[in-house]
Amino acid sequence: MSHPPFDLYAFWRTSATFRVRVALHMKGIAATEHQVNLDAGEQRGEAFLKINPLAAIPALVTPDQPPLTQSMAILEFLEELQPTPPLLPADLYGRARVRSIAGMLASDTHPLVTPRVRRYLTGSAGFDDAAWRAWQMQWFGTGLAAVEQRLASEAGTGRFCHGEVPGMADICLASIIAVMRVFKIPTSGTPTVDRIVAACEELDAFQRAQPQRQVGAPT
Amino acid sequence: MSHPPFDLYAFWRTSATFRVRVALHMKGIAATEHQVNLDAGEQRGEAFLKINPLAAIPALVTPDQPPLTQSMAILEFLEELQPTPPLLPADLYGRARVRSIAGMLASDTHPLVTPRVRRYLTGSAGFDDAAWRAWQMQWFGTGLAAVEQRLASEAGTGRFCHGEVPGMADICLASIIAVMRVFKIPTSGTPTVDRIVAACEELDAFQRAQPQRQVGAPT
Repeated sequence: MSHPPFDLYAFWRTSATFRVRVALHMKGIAATEHQVNLDAGEQRGEAFLKINPLAAIPALVTPDQPPLTQSMAILEFLEELQPTPPLLPADLYGRARVRSIAGMLASDTHPLVTPRVRRYLTGSAGFDDAAWRAWQMQWFGTGLAAVEQRLASEAGTGRFCHGEVPGMADICLASIIAVMRVFKIPTSGTPTVDRIVAACEELDAFQRAQPQRQVGAPT
Repeated sequence: MSHPPFDLYAFWRTSATFRVRVALHMKGIAATEHQVNLDAGEQRGEAFLKINPLAAIPALVTPDQPPLTQSMAILEFLEELQPTPPLLPADLYGRARVRSIAGMLASDTHPLVTPRVRRYLTGSAGFDDAAWRAWQMQWFGTGLAAVEQRLASEAGTGRFCHGEVPGMADICLASIIAVMRVFKIPTSGTPTVDRIVAACEELDAFQRAQPQRQVGAPT
């Protein structure tokens, strides 16, 4: 299947970019990556603001269309653009379950630990490094514990979050673990999460998306 | 069209419950509401934990299926269950735009100002009332300013966030404004947002979902 040329504006470390990379790899859709160095504030620089005035990555850009933003909206877009291999199961309740688990991670966990939140808490609210780390641990811990409880108890769980093939929930789960590793935060008491992430990481699409393998990652 | 009987576990004030209420009303799907008093901690009580062990609302429950959770997953479920009237446009890029705007509000804004975040910041991080209010203003302000910039500049905007009929982005936008009103936080410098929310509030489905019209709201 042929697609328009895609450009992905990305940063090596971010969880949201990871999600889009895995989905592109799974579906075999090529995108040219352009690095936006968040540590250097490039997302707020004039060059990037022409691409996304909202100063946020990832942005998936294709000719003659506004930039696509928000990682979960991009995943749904890629799923509709090229339905195979699927990121969502075929049945109504299965799709709702996968999107719910994905939301627990992408909506209820990740937005709390982004650079802009760190900037506010350390800049305006007096958080020192220890307070920031406690904050990170709180929300990564709460999110993963809740997901573990579902994965360990619900009948839908298989080798992956939902059945025997990886999908949108697995992408979100692996994206959280990937960024936790960057910040040297181990998981704890989440055996089902750990097992599923290990299964994901046997797959080429997930391996190629790992932060340390991206342009711009520290060596 | 006939549906299974739905039970919605809800609280009068919450933004996420508002979203599900509007979608149900728009699609004409009935659900029996059950109040979970978040101020009294009922979400962590034994009775509700049997319905959702994750102590989160909204939960949409139907016989012989696990509870549906996460408001955006529930909206996608309702859209697939009953496609008309649609919450998403028909075209691929339009759908991505609506989901992206919805995500800016439901993922990048709302999770930062939930009760559990308040509990952490005031309980463990020493925030007083003024610091909490500054935090609320920061994230409501940032989210709405970003959405305003898109709505005011992008060709897709019409009477509603995307064209001439209300959809998923409008539901998310109105849900944020509804909870801001509960906390007496006015919008500022967002004329397009204000105009679109006013258009939403002319519609019965949005009016009936307003917090102050729900069981349990203060009189």
